[in-house]
Amino acid sequence: MKKQEPKTLSGFMELMPNEQIAFNKMLDVIKNTYENYGFVPIDTPVIEYSEVLLAKAGGETEKQLYRFLKGDKDLSLRFDLTVPLAKYVASRYNLLSFPFKRYQIGKVYRGERAQRGRFREFYQCDIDVIGDESLDINYDVVMVNVIYDIFKKLNIADFLIRINNRKLLIGFLELNNINNTDEVLRVIDKVSKVDKNSFIDLLKEVGLNDDQINKVINFIMFEGSNQDKLEFVTTFLGKNAKYDLGFEELKTVINSIENLKLDTNNYMIDLKLSRGLDYYTGTIYETVLKDYPQIGSVGGGGRYDDLASFYTDKKLPGVGISIGLTRLFDQLKEEGLITINESFEDVLIMPIGIEYDYPNIIAKTLRNSNIKASVYYGNKNIKQMMKYADKINAKYSLILGEEEINSKLLTLKNMKTFEQFKLKEEDVIKFIKEN
Amino acid sequence: MKKQEPKTLSGFMELMPNEQIAFNKMLDVIKNTYENYGFVPIDTPVIEYSEVLLAKAGGETEKQLYRFLKGDKDLSLRFDLTVPLAKYVASRYNLLSFPFKRYQIGKVYRGERAQRGRFREFYQCDIDVIGDESLDINYDVVMVNVIYDIFKKLNIADFLIRINNRKLLIGFLELNNINNTDEVLRVIDKVSKVDKNSFIDLLKEVGLNDDQINKVINFIMFEGSNQDKLEFVTTFLGKNAKYDLGFEELKTVINSIENLKLDTNNYMIDLKLSRGLDYYTGTIYETVLKDYPQIGSVGGGGRYDDLASFYTDKKLPGVGISIGLTRLFDQLKEEGLITINESFEDVLIMPIGIEYDYPNIIAKTLRNSNIKASVYYGNKNIKQMMKYADKINAKYSLILGEEEINSKLLTLKNMKTFEQFKLKEEDVIKFIKEN
Repeated sequence: MKKQEPKTLSGFMELMPNEQIAFNKMLDVIKNTYENYGFVPIDTPVIEYSEVLLAKAGGETEKQLYRFLKGDKDLSLRFDLTVPLAKYVASRYNLLSFPFKRYQIGKVYRGERAQRGRFREFYQCDIDVIGDESLDINYDVVMVNVIYDIFKKLNIADFLIRINNRKLLIGFLELNNINNTDEVLRVIDKVSKVDKNSFIDLLKEVGLNDDQINKVINFIMFEGSNQDKLEFVTTFLGKNAKYDLGFEELKTVINSIENLKLDTNNYMIDLKLSRGLDYYTGTIYETVLKDYPQIGSVGGGGRYDDLASFYTDKKLPGVGISIGLTRLFDQLKEEGLITINESFEDVLIMPIGIEYDYPNIIAKTLRNSNIKASVYYGNKNIKQMMKYADKINAKYSLILGEEEINSKLLTLKNMKTFEQFKLKEEDVIKFIKEN
Repeated sequence: MKKQEPKTLSGFMELMPNEQIAFNKMLDVIKNTYENYGFVPIDTPVIEYSEVLLAKAGGETEKQLYRFLKGDKDLSLRFDLTVPLAKYVASRYNLLSFPFKRYQIGKVYRGERAQRGRFREFYQCDIDVIGDESLDINYDVVMVNVIYDIFKKLNIADFLIRINNRKLLIGFLELNNINNTDEVLRVIDKVSKVDKNSFIDLLKEVGLNDDQINKVINFIMFEGSNQDKLEFVTTFLGKNAKYDLGFEELKTVINSIENLKLDTNNYMIDLKLSRGLDYYTGTIYETVLKDYPQIGSVGGGGRYDDLASFYTDKKLPGVGISIGLTRLFDQLKEEGLITINESFEDVLIMPIGIEYDYPNIIAKTLRNSNIKASVYYGNKNIKQMMKYADKINAKYSLILGEEEINSKLLTLKNMKTFEQFKLKEEDVIKFIKEN
């Protein structure tokens, strides 16, 4: 019989079990932190009507879409979790309580050209707070606090949450008579990726004169502490209402964070942060790992005025953040920052020449105490079983033979240190829990 | 602007947040039990090459497939988690340790005709143990133990795990000169769904004579305790090697379970259990809720000889079980067996006419003690905030106004009982943890 090659599509992550355990551990930190802040879970279909997904989307999204007909239905796979959230909220407006605080963790699909570090299927881990008509600025502070907690708990590398405000940026451009603000912000978004002369050329290309270019560069490149920056931006107050509002928002966010006594090494105002998306209208965030700038943003988001205008007339402002876990995990693995030798099986029980009844009872007793335990079944010798215990990263092996049954002393072996302990049955659980 | 209707495809489950919390709770019980037995997680793509998914599949599966072209690639959405497991194991044969014990929980897709209780997107929660060349019969016992633990912990309704062995059934047919065994087993699979006369007619249709029909009915309908049944089936030993082997396997499984002292109300030999799928070759399982027979099977599986013969020459026998959580949840909801009023937010902090700095610090302190807590931001009065706390099912509200700050006594209100407590800041955590 001709065999089919068991191949996996490129751009789709499929991990070894020990890697998957490390991945799931990160996922759990994110999920638990979201829940700790009172966000509730939702789950939406991977497949939606194309017209629903594309109600707002532009050209680039449409090209990347996995889109197909099933019967007479035009369907697509979701490309993010924000459009499904908009659909969810718009269709349940009367049933939900606002502010609506939801988290969603799930796979999304983008048929991008496959390249290193790009995935066509990847996990997004999102939280958003959606208001009805209005949403207090203090929810913007919550986002910073959540990202902070997550990266502190993940404890993978020193991180920095960069914070800015798009009203402030746009207002600053406007008060300098720059009115193609979307275009200019997309250029500012590139400032860290190009050298200074190229950046000036890009600003010229979108129509800025030398004076405007100077003013923009002096503004976005201003260095100093967060309070220095807040002080610096007061210089331009009173000339543009949007700028003044942006300043108030940024000040509230930064002062509230300072009050929370977060480590000041882990957040900063970054006046050159603009984020390409026109979608954001206030506070914006981007998190980077300080020693690994090549990884780029590991989590970001921002404030937007209206979540679901393409589905409903209700005004639904919101603020949210998203962590792209698949790419993050892949990059961290690449940099050697992922520990993949963690134990998953606490105890592998090895019966030596005895019936399985007693080993089964021991396994049951361990599991009842929340110790992951299983019995190795099959006619193998102790050397083979030890090799297996080692390969599956068992923390302990528990040897059960005639000798152990007769002496009522079980042999527990630490698979990392190779230490062996003779323990009474009733002491095994205590020993494992304490070690 | 014309609005797009935010509609969801039929056959796709999308729950309200409080329902989703209940769903996730069930999912966690299943996941934690799988892990407790030392099963390791894997995650495979939702999209695969069609030729890979269809390497084995037959006509019905192909019709239900979500299949489409992306560029020049013929792609499909996975319709179960078994084929992806086969792909995974076949492509990593040299990297994995056998017996390979994996769990996978994820969405699968079947474009069935939409009808009540049928889903086109649904969660499967699977475990399998895969052996290299051979796999000890005692892993079949593990499956029973796992299902038992899960349904005990879910604690939704009285359940019954029905157990049989296909070798025994096939052997019995063969020793009665019935050789179209696949066909006859598919008829036996229907015995509980039709009346006796219709069942006899169906057996006649597949070629059985009156004597054979009598013998089959007397065999599969035999009633008694598990030991009575094991005794009864010894009657036919010594005539067919497959039958004898099936008997040995069933006896081992049942006696091992008895040794584990599982509640005898929750499992039984059921000689008429045959499961439609030709795939199974030994022990088979099916779990039902005793008082809700209309729900049908809520979890089942069995032993198979060869997981991945369409990908590899390696012989990979296995045993597994699967729980279709989406359908199960939907049916339980239908029967009113799901509790959907559980708290998700432990404490909602309500600032009354004060700045947010102090409430933010209290929230942080609570969260650091693993109490889900958040602050209500925005200019609302206490009545409005209480209404919100009630709607989101907060366990407690914590009122913080000038009075509370001055007296250093915070007002904690139990949102279920409406009791109010005046507590010192440092006593709030202790109080919540103890109540």
